[in-house]
Amino acid sequence: PDWIIMEHDNVKRLERVYKFKDFVSALSFTQKVGRLAEDEGHHPAILTEWGSVGVAWWTHKIHGLHRNDFIMAAKTDEIYKDFEAM
Amino acid sequence: PDWIIMEHDNVKRLERVYKFKDFVSALSFTQKVGRLAEDEGHHPAILTEWGSVGVAWWTHKIHGLHRNDFIMAAKTDEIYKDFEAM
Repeated sequence: PDWIIMEHDNVKRLERVYKFKDFVSALSFTQKVGRLAEDEGHHPAILTEWGSVGVAWWTHKIHGLHRNDFIMAAKTDEIYKDFEAM
Repeated sequence: PDWIIMEHDNVKRLERVYKFKDFVSALSFTQKVGRLAEDEGHHPAILTEWGSVGVAWWTHKIHGLHRNDFIMAAKTDEIYKDFEAM
């Protein structure tokens, strides 16, 4: 599975690591996911490194996962499609 | 101290967490640190969240810390100065 549910400080989060060909692509993806987050008012943790970006979605208010987190995960996958094609 | 040396998978890294007033500022800082990294050809791990950005510098080739990591840390602090003033 691309997304896994991981517990972090007693909070369940939906996490996926995306792969990229270099740092610039990873940084550009981070920026796009960040803009999506801001537009939707729902903020993930994003770990940007050379060749990879880890994204974790969870709902702060309920300290866990909500339907919206799964929707955000699907939207994050949509953003990644443009990078996979490169 | 602002920067601490943390061991991660047996590799010593220089780490600092910066605070921000919102997600947009954190994302903008991430972008600027990322551009610095690309310019210098030296790439950190950057963890972007609502209100904070964690930065870790280390030298992949030697699996540890090199003088250059401390220089990059100082340059990262320089970038942060513009955000502290906001």
